[in-house]
Amino acid sequence: MSTETTAKYEFLGRSLIAGTVAAEKGSTFHAYHPVDGHALETTFYSVTAEDVDRAVVAAVDAFAVFAATSGQERGRLLRGIADGIDASATAIVERAMMETALTRPRLTGEVARTSGQLRLFASLVEEGSWLMARIDTADPARTPPKPDVRSMLRPLGPVAVFGASNFPLAFSVAGGDTASALAGGNPVIVKAHSAHPGTSEIVGQIVVSAIKASGLPAGIFSLLFGGGNEVGTALVQHPGIRAVGFTGSFRVGRTLMDLSAKRPNPIPVYAEMGSTNPVFILPGALQERGEQLAEGLHGSFTLGGGQFCTKPGMVFAEAARSTAFVERLRSTTKGGPAFPLLTGGIASAYKGALAGRENLQTAAGASAESGFSVQPVLLETTGETFFSDPSLAEEVFGPTTLFVHCSGAAEMLRAARELQGHLTATILGTEKDLEQNAELLSILETKVGRVIFNSFPTGVEVCHAMVHGGPYPATSDGRSTSVGSQAIFRFVRPVAYQGLPQSALPAALQDANPLGILRLWNGAWATDAKA
Amino acid sequence: MSTETTAKYEFLGRSLIAGTVAAEKGSTFHAYHPVDGHALETTFYSVTAEDVDRAVVAAVDAFAVFAATSGQERGRLLRGIADGIDASATAIVERAMMETALTRPRLTGEVARTSGQLRLFASLVEEGSWLMARIDTADPARTPPKPDVRSMLRPLGPVAVFGASNFPLAFSVAGGDTASALAGGNPVIVKAHSAHPGTSEIVGQIVVSAIKASGLPAGIFSLLFGGGNEVGTALVQHPGIRAVGFTGSFRVGRTLMDLSAKRPNPIPVYAEMGSTNPVFILPGALQERGEQLAEGLHGSFTLGGGQFCTKPGMVFAEAARSTAFVERLRSTTKGGPAFPLLTGGIASAYKGALAGRENLQTAAGASAESGFSVQPVLLETTGETFFSDPSLAEEVFGPTTLFVHCSGAAEMLRAARELQGHLTATILGTEKDLEQNAELLSILETKVGRVIFNSFPTGVEVCHAMVHGGPYPATSDGRSTSVGSQAIFRFVRPVAYQGLPQSALPAALQDANPLGILRLWNGAWATDAKA
Repeated sequence: MSTETTAKYEFLGRSLIAGTVAAEKGSTFHAYHPVDGHALETTFYSVTAEDVDRAVVAAVDAFAVFAATSGQERGRLLRGIADGIDASATAIVERAMMETALTRPRLTGEVARTSGQLRLFASLVEEGSWLMARIDTADPARTPPKPDVRSMLRPLGPVAVFGASNFPLAFSVAGGDTASALAGGNPVIVKAHSAHPGTSEIVGQIVVSAIKASGLPAGIFSLLFGGGNEVGTALVQHPGIRAVGFTGSFRVGRTLMDLSAKRPNPIPVYAEMGSTNPVFILPGALQERGEQLAEGLHGSFTLGGGQFCTKPGMVFAEAARSTAFVERLRSTTKGGPAFPLLTGGIASAYKGALAGRENLQTAAGASAESGFSVQPVLLETTGETFFSDPSLAEEVFGPTTLFVHCSGAAEMLRAARELQGHLTATILGTEKDLEQNAELLSILETKVGRVIFNSFPTGVEVCHAMVHGGPYPATSDGRSTSVGSQAIFRFVRPVAYQGLPQSALPAALQDANPLGILRLWNGAWATDAKA
Repeated sequence: MSTETTAKYEFLGRSLIAGTVAAEKGSTFHAYHPVDGHALETTFYSVTAEDVDRAVVAAVDAFAVFAATSGQERGRLLRGIADGIDASATAIVERAMMETALTRPRLTGEVARTSGQLRLFASLVEEGSWLMARIDTADPARTPPKPDVRSMLRPLGPVAVFGASNFPLAFSVAGGDTASALAGGNPVIVKAHSAHPGTSEIVGQIVVSAIKASGLPAGIFSLLFGGGNEVGTALVQHPGIRAVGFTGSFRVGRTLMDLSAKRPNPIPVYAEMGSTNPVFILPGALQERGEQLAEGLHGSFTLGGGQFCTKPGMVFAEAARSTAFVERLRSTTKGGPAFPLLTGGIASAYKGALAGRENLQTAAGASAESGFSVQPVLLETTGETFFSDPSLAEEVFGPTTLFVHCSGAAEMLRAARELQGHLTATILGTEKDLEQNAELLSILETKVGRVIFNSFPTGVEVCHAMVHGGPYPATSDGRSTSVGSQAIFRFVRPVAYQGLPQSALPAALQDANPLGILRLWNGAWATDAKA
């Protein structure tokens, strides 16, 4: 056992299997400090194939009990995890800073977002209307007799969650995927991201403690470490796993989709993958506040080192009207600092992608050679060149964006029409601009999960209406969101009960409506108890 | 052009591409009369690859206009189709009888179900709450400022629908898949089932006329004929297609899933495939009304020649208590008539499956050698044999069922636990039986889309609460239903609008709530207009 500690936390370096600590077997790996690239002290053990199986079997065994819990019981569990995370915020942030080089304010904010997400899902399941209870009562007098049919959403079963490198808390061990899957009544098995295993272990222990305190079966949660791809592959292929949540690269996301498609029983894979998040700047806005927009765009594409899924990676505006905007964008980029990226792999990929685009580089910030640090870079090109080279529309993870000088409105519309699926599309303009570009808006809404007017796409509000999703290849399943309360719908399915006596029905479907929830009663929404 | 007519309907025998009639090119095929197997007169032309492409391109082009239509406009279209079907009921039923050998009452009922389904979706979209509008308003005073975010369900794009052999109307050209896809705002391209092309053409012409009368773009509907697999394959692989609806065999359904998974951009495939629909008969019911249950079961497994997706194909009960039940089941089966099946392929598959189970056959009805007719057959086995041969749990399409003599309650529970995914599971019992078998119910609800108490699974009510779906391999996507109003959710996705001025928002998301629909306003359900 390592003696390395963080704010008194002593690391085990081993996977947590249904409340027990895995053996010190298998290969080992370390986390790295991105600023100078040195390996952190604690040794982490990749979980063995036997322990992966043990975790899934425990989850399968725990499923029936967990699926039968009330919204109040699940709410208590989620609030317990949230409280534990808030109570350990200092230890979590300190370790995460070492493993990610993200700043203390950013990580402190992410802790709050993570516990806030858990409490949002707690409120959701405590309230109960999310169950979408639907009741059509019998009519024995009809020919043929009309049966009594009632349906509600029920959990899928054990869910595999992959921690994301760029959100070591909010999309990791107790992040949005885990919170929404647990809220729906599904056991969760997390594959920790190997870039922040220490952060993952601290949060994993908090989840284990909260489960213990709740009296629920330990099998509803496991945390698996793995330095390579084997653990994730074994998890997605395991017959006991019923769904997958993933945030990461297109390459890995598509691999998980293909692994699922080849299973004897394919399962839903919710992979949030690459997105370049196009921005369209309209003439009125360029004239009114071009330089201010340049500052805003720079802030957005370099935020967190440009390592947001919603980083604006390509920007379209009419060349003739963009002079002041572009000049300010170049000068601001030139004055910017270098950024340590999350992993050596991400830094290499960033440098490799830019090495192929040197001829487009018009401005760059401070260069940095130590650790995983990289230089922020502004690229520029013409519409003509952009259309001739589809690779220019691909995501480059890190602090860079591509400004496309368009010849006019027609070229901007063409750019919109030729977009693949993205998480977001942004329009910066005056209200008059928007009126004059109604077609642009109607095209963009078919290409993305979220259309934004007059703000930047980074910063995803966790709320009921949020859609953090989008058509392929932005995600594997454009019918879903991984942020906000609608994320729970990824891990449930409707089940109908026909002709069951009141006593055998789930509470949500009983005439008396003991949960007091909104239900579709014979086609009309109602919250009252029925005779 | 053929001169064969049905109640004055003159067949073209050619595909309908966005309101135009395809050329007489490509290979040809005929429908067959199942009773004697003779080919019907009209020649149908398989559509060419060029015309498949033309249909998809027209659908893509029509999508923006159709997606922007109001619920009222879509409702008018759906009611127009429903009225057209009702007005042509005689011609439709006459032709369908020739092509399917299903009875006049059955087909007359199916016409009513089909127009009823269309009107159910019309009501749904006219009312509007299905859009799941969610509004979280801005809070500029918060740090960081909270943005205004609003989301609602939007259509996916062109949907490929495959007509089903066993429901020539309700799951065919203007069946549930087409109705729900159109209701959601998606253009539809139907691949007609080649067993009932004439029925398909009549209904297809009705859809074309209704679209013409509605003033909507002709490209929102095409009907494609194809004698082989080429047309369906081309359709599912076409980049313009955004989702697939299918009802049919496991083999073809899985093929469509695999075709989609290999696309550069995979799309949702909703395939309703095989299901054996287990029935569990509990001791109290056997004692109270064993012989009545035997009659009911026989009626259910031979209904429509046993060609229902929900046919009860395996039945479990305690051997020691089943004597009277089994005796009656055998005698009723012996007294039953032969049934003409829908196609020569279905009849061959039925005979082939039973040829491998001859040792289990305990009773059979009238034998029939003409056309596609087959003999109804009762199979019986022990729990031990059943568990040792997984193939016994596979669907056999046609008038047969398998009764499993279980040694006791434990063996019945084991059968439940080892089930794969099915559309339905049925419990026949007294209320006391149900109380004493709570575990059985809790297992079954994880295996199926619908749990039924004390009625038979055939006969699927079209209503708001119905779930006609179930875990794989019953369907490709257990999170969906293909019957009932929830079927619309298969063909839509949430889209969020952030920071848009009221004038640029869809009506469903405007503060004033001009549609008067139920919305989630800052986390609370409300139907009122907001200031």
